[in-house]
Amino acid sequence: MKASVRTNEQKWEEGFVARLFEEIARRTADDQGVSRPAYSEIETETLKYLEQCARDEGLDVVYDRGRNAWFSLPEDTDAEDYVLVGSHVDSVPRGGNFDGLAGVLAGLVCLVKSRREGRKFSRPVKVIAMRGEESAWFGPCYIASKALLGVLEPGEQSAPHKGDGRPLIGHMADTGVDVGAVRGANPLVDHRHILAYLELHIEQGPMLVEKQLAAAVVSGIRGNIRHKRIACIGEAGHSGAVPRAYRHDPVLAMAELLNRLDESWLTILQKGDDLVLTCGMLGTDSETHALSRIPDSVGFSLDIRSQDTGALDEMRDLLHQEARYIETDRGVKFQFDDEIFTAPALCDEGIVEDLTGAQIRLCQKPFVMPSGGGHDAAVFANAGVPTGMIFVRNRGGSHNPGESMEISDFLQATGIIFEYLTSQSDRIYR
Amino acid sequence: MKASVRTNEQKWEEGFVARLFEEIARRTADDQGVSRPAYSEIETETLKYLEQCARDEGLDVVYDRGRNAWFSLPEDTDAEDYVLVGSHVDSVPRGGNFDGLAGVLAGLVCLVKSRREGRKFSRPVKVIAMRGEESAWFGPCYIASKALLGVLEPGEQSAPHKGDGRPLIGHMADTGVDVGAVRGANPLVDHRHILAYLELHIEQGPMLVEKQLAAAVVSGIRGNIRHKRIACIGEAGHSGAVPRAYRHDPVLAMAELLNRLDESWLTILQKGDDLVLTCGMLGTDSETHALSRIPDSVGFSLDIRSQDTGALDEMRDLLHQEARYIETDRGVKFQFDDEIFTAPALCDEGIVEDLTGAQIRLCQKPFVMPSGGGHDAAVFANAGVPTGMIFVRNRGGSHNPGESMEISDFLQATGIIFEYLTSQSDRIYR
Repeated sequence: MKASVRTNEQKWEEGFVARLFEEIARRTADDQGVSRPAYSEIETETLKYLEQCARDEGLDVVYDRGRNAWFSLPEDTDAEDYVLVGSHVDSVPRGGNFDGLAGVLAGLVCLVKSRREGRKFSRPVKVIAMRGEESAWFGPCYIASKALLGVLEPGEQSAPHKGDGRPLIGHMADTGVDVGAVRGANPLVDHRHILAYLELHIEQGPMLVEKQLAAAVVSGIRGNIRHKRIACIGEAGHSGAVPRAYRHDPVLAMAELLNRLDESWLTILQKGDDLVLTCGMLGTDSETHALSRIPDSVGFSLDIRSQDTGALDEMRDLLHQEARYIETDRGVKFQFDDEIFTAPALCDEGIVEDLTGAQIRLCQKPFVMPSGGGHDAAVFANAGVPTGMIFVRNRGGSHNPGESMEISDFLQATGIIFEYLTSQSDRIYR
Repeated sequence: MKASVRTNEQKWEEGFVARLFEEIARRTADDQGVSRPAYSEIETETLKYLEQCARDEGLDVVYDRGRNAWFSLPEDTDAEDYVLVGSHVDSVPRGGNFDGLAGVLAGLVCLVKSRREGRKFSRPVKVIAMRGEESAWFGPCYIASKALLGVLEPGEQSAPHKGDGRPLIGHMADTGVDVGAVRGANPLVDHRHILAYLELHIEQGPMLVEKQLAAAVVSGIRGNIRHKRIACIGEAGHSGAVPRAYRHDPVLAMAELLNRLDESWLTILQKGDDLVLTCGMLGTDSETHALSRIPDSVGFSLDIRSQDTGALDEMRDLLHQEARYIETDRGVKFQFDDEIFTAPALCDEGIVEDLTGAQIRLCQKPFVMPSGGGHDAAVFANAGVPTGMIFVRNRGGSHNPGESMEISDFLQATGIIFEYLTSQSDRIYR
């Protein structure tokens, strides 16, 4: 009997989830994919649609002073201490439907499932649908979670919108956010009452596809060292007329630097440390470059990420050491812009263990991996809230309409969170 | 007595040359440097000004069917067999005044010097001031010398002007060129009567500056292998979320290729072969690239030059071998555009020897070097005309207003040609 009940449940969940994903994709469609700008009418309408769906299922819905929507079972609405489950509803321009939204729907499914099936949570649960997380609209990322915890910085508040150029804080005011509190760096919620923060998110890389697994427990969110533009300055010259000994070729100098970093990356991995390294943008000056001209300079970006601050420090040292060596060897100069540093955010070890335990109980192969992309979870973790994350298998990467998540994978991943929320843990997180 | 006479001569030459360079720079000035477009009114006016200066000095001036100006002593005007000295009068946009023009004035100085000083040439001498040589205006280079020798190809004839888009052949017709002959690939001159072709040109690299020498004899003009755009195709992904093992990063693949070619270049030089290698243009797609995105592709150019066809062949093989290795190793694909190949053009060994002998007789340190840039001389050499070139020391490279040639260096270099033209050589070139 249990098996058939389970099948019925799953059918219900599948229908519920598919309907919400499809309806929101339809309401927020762009010429390609979806566009749900941070702090926009479209975002507000998306929250209102979720509110209606939640009320239809007998859930309570309230809004905080950041105009994020909170959902809960009626009996938990006034709970002082609670486990928080959630993610964001905004998307990048012409993005995919699942990045962010999947984490909100995972929380809603847990609430509805608890109510429909009468399965009690071990502690009160609240679900949050946050606004702007994507950096694509204003530059800063994790806007809503930072505002919620009182850490959205003045420089971030005044960041101009990529379209109309008006500052973020103005757009926040338009959607009804208590911008006085945001400006005063006053938390909109007392995070000491959040027993744990859980977020489900599509994986933005290929690991789960490669490993043929539906879901993973996240160990932490990689921190990063970023340079938007490192310039290598050499000396221009005729491509045919300058012998090697008299060249100060910035392109070959950059190639050597990237190649040396690539080799060091391999060594760091062989030592068992975590690291990824990317040069996403590079180019000679299209105004002056030519086939038969040694360029005078070349610019390139670097994005180095690791779960381990030590590995980031090691790579930073290597970068500057190698650059100095090449400068001397080739008579060029590397000009570094200001480094943007984001510290790694570790998930709570107890939560990682409990989520892995839940995976095992659900007969899923337990798998723990780092998150390469940043998430709202990092803001909660860095504020001291015990944090856990679940990744769902996803083809096609993220931030593009090609995102591809199977609903069955989503339900398996959501099942881990539901199992966690409903099982008794002896662990005291705070 | 001889020393003081020499000083007076030099003073005369200095004044004559400086006046012509200055006047032509003034007449063809652009907002920066000079612009003397190929097959333009400005080019025609430059030839007319030279014609007037030559007539003032008692020289004969005629135009060929390519509307290039020919100068000679009256007694040599009808000579059947002759040594030809010359270069081009056009310039790149906002270029320097000396590239091309110096070679024409060197020839004129020789004629005027012979006439003023009564020093006879050992064989008749004609001086040619050619039109378009620079590729900047239409794409093809060496236009006038190719048309002169009947080798300007149909594709080159129809190349559109970078400004008005009209084909080269139309611009040639406007200046009075016999375009019927050009179209028919009929030589405008019988090159079998050219006993030797000599061209003086500013050096476009730093060798003479570094060596502290005023002039050099050129051994030959480097040929080249060129690719305007090689694309490396990889796979886009999130900079933080894709582990190294699952990456197909085109930028790191390109960096490895350039680094390997750079190392091979060094090995080839250590073997004593001649080679230069340049990646002048490279870039990720500015529409789609981002700091936190592994790019799906990167494009780059390659310009590989050598005096030795064998070294070019070796480097071509290495390029494709290394690319194949990296493709397999990294799961990327290199897409090569069509290779543009220009064969090396060797200067005549006898002329190189005679010019070096002239240097020694003039108490200059003899120095022989390859030319990295292409010149009209290559067209004559490849047509079978025994060819020689002299380089003049020049700071600031070429094709820019920063070209910087000392008149005293120019006169030393011109002295080599004059010495060559007036000395008896037992050598029979043809």
